[in-house]
Amino acid sequence: MTTPPTTAPADVPPPDAAPADTVIALDVGGSRLKGAVVDAGGTAAATVEWRLTPEDGADAVVTSVLSALVNLRHHPAAAHARAAGLAVPGLVDTTSGRAIWSENLRWNDVPIRALAEERTGLPVALGHDVRAGGLAEVRAGAARGADHALVVPVGTGIAAAIVVDGMVIDGRGLAGELGHVDVGYDEPCACGARGCTEAVASAAAIARRYTRRCGLAVDGAADVLERKHAGDPDAEAVWAEAIDALSRALATACSLLAPEVVVIGGGLAKAGAELFDPLSDRLAGRLTFQDLPRIVPAALGDRAGCIGAAMMARDLVERGGTHS
Amino acid sequence: MTTPPTTAPADVPPPDAAPADTVIALDVGGSRLKGAVVDAGGTAAATVEWRLTPEDGADAVVTSVLSALVNLRHHPAAAHARAAGLAVPGLVDTTSGRAIWSENLRWNDVPIRALAEERTGLPVALGHDVRAGGLAEVRAGAARGADHALVVPVGTGIAAAIVVDGMVIDGRGLAGELGHVDVGYDEPCACGARGCTEAVASAAAIARRYTRRCGLAVDGAADVLERKHAGDPDAEAVWAEAIDALSRALATACSLLAPEVVVIGGGLAKAGAELFDPLSDRLAGRLTFQDLPRIVPAALGDRAGCIGAAMMARDLVERGGTHS
Repeated sequence: MTTPPTTAPADVPPPDAAPADTVIALDVGGSRLKGAVVDAGGTAAATVEWRLTPEDGADAVVTSVLSALVNLRHHPAAAHARAAGLAVPGLVDTTSGRAIWSENLRWNDVPIRALAEERTGLPVALGHDVRAGGLAEVRAGAARGADHALVVPVGTGIAAAIVVDGMVIDGRGLAGELGHVDVGYDEPCACGARGCTEAVASAAAIARRYTRRCGLAVDGAADVLERKHAGDPDAEAVWAEAIDALSRALATACSLLAPEVVVIGGGLAKAGAELFDPLSDRLAGRLTFQDLPRIVPAALGDRAGCIGAAMMARDLVERGGTHS
Repeated sequence: MTTPPTTAPADVPPPDAAPADTVIALDVGGSRLKGAVVDAGGTAAATVEWRLTPEDGADAVVTSVLSALVNLRHHPAAAHARAAGLAVPGLVDTTSGRAIWSENLRWNDVPIRALAEERTGLPVALGHDVRAGGLAEVRAGAARGADHALVVPVGTGIAAAIVVDGMVIDGRGLAGELGHVDVGYDEPCACGARGCTEAVASAAAIARRYTRRCGLAVDGAADVLERKHAGDPDAEAVWAEAIDALSRALATACSLLAPEVVVIGGGLAKAGAELFDPLSDRLAGRLTFQDLPRIVPAALGDRAGCIGAAMMARDLVERGGTHS
């Protein structure tokens, strides 16, 4: 059974002090729902988290998402909420307001926006989690001020929010699949193709490839990095290949999109200079006439999706509630 | 010496019949200048071509471009011209109005927009030739009606106009270098890198690689295609590699940008089904969850750049002459 939403401790103002013109925001992850009530100035008046158990099936996930939104709607700080922002993973059709598909959440063509609007009584802005996070990083995070940027969370998979002229492009809900660019490693990918960036360079791939190479189980990419520090040549090779694969994908993105800045987020960004220095060097070595972008760590961490969802809700209010 | 502009035969109305609200347009190619006077309905009231001899140096090229614009300005059909559109190759800074660099034209940081405005007395919209052609194909050609498209001229080189939400993206004048995506062939490219699409799949590369492979000089990619028809296995191999390389570049673009349609133009598009059928098959074989775009030939041929330049001029008029 899906864990019922439970409100985490939050700094809750009394209802009569609830800020006017607030929005509510929810970021749906693979194992967690992150919610917030955000005031007109962009400050979170409250943040709430819930566990999510997608193994209970799509219906339970939808119930949990809607319950979380209703819970946020009734939060004392949200008394004057004007809209909700909802960021979800997988394929999203922002025109029809449907969550088309998510492998993790096991849902399939759910009219989630209409359901959310019905349950909350608010206009709901629906978007993709990676693109919501990219929106947050470009407006208020590590890509702030850039007209052209890539925001790339590297975790279990790899995706990108593509920022063009200061806007995150949606591409019919399909744009930004940087993890599925062929970087020449001929490694099979979960998508069915071979050579995809995320089959070599995602945090999950780094752990998996290390284990396959030397038969030793590891506790994620961080563990591989530890072993590299300790002088393990297999760890060193797997790490170097991940950096190389990622540099190839970024070089391609530079040729096509000319970002001024590339923001790397997700679990792998925690590697710090071990990631950023060789990645920048490799990328510089691949580019000729193209501009070398700055490569910087994400600034908003795992709150980016929720902050971006709040921005989407705010944009919806500014558009007078009309879905774009 | 640069060939002085000479007016080609054109259908010239008498001055008193000059359409109101026209624009003039000039597309600067490597060996030719293509000009037009276009009325408010988008119909060319006159078209003019001049030869260009870039080997005479950058100053002579600039002089020729300005002379051609002045010549168009004084064309009887342009008596009521409101703006000019100028499409140039290479790197273009559309914000500052400067032609930053072109290997073919040998120019380097020329304030071409200001010079053109001074000489013509008209507001001038400056843009990139490939993106101007892409604009024309998406508004009036083979990509008409598509929100997301790629327009890819394949000739001496390979580039792309990237259409997102119906607009051609500029990316600081740097976007769309599809020809310099690494497709894994390890072939040296003129840009200094290895593996670039255009080092394998451009019309020039097809001829060059055939000659290198079997020591026989050929008259361009069309000649290689002829030999393929005649059963020449070297021609077959070089052609197949070009198609494969192009399919890899397009697969990457599909992952990042999700175009609904890919328009192929330039000399190679003349190959027809010999190009389009295997290219579409190869691309379909590379994509998994991504949408397979339609791959279609360009509709506007070598007039696309000039038509697009006229559209840029028209957009400038509609913006009240303000450079965007």
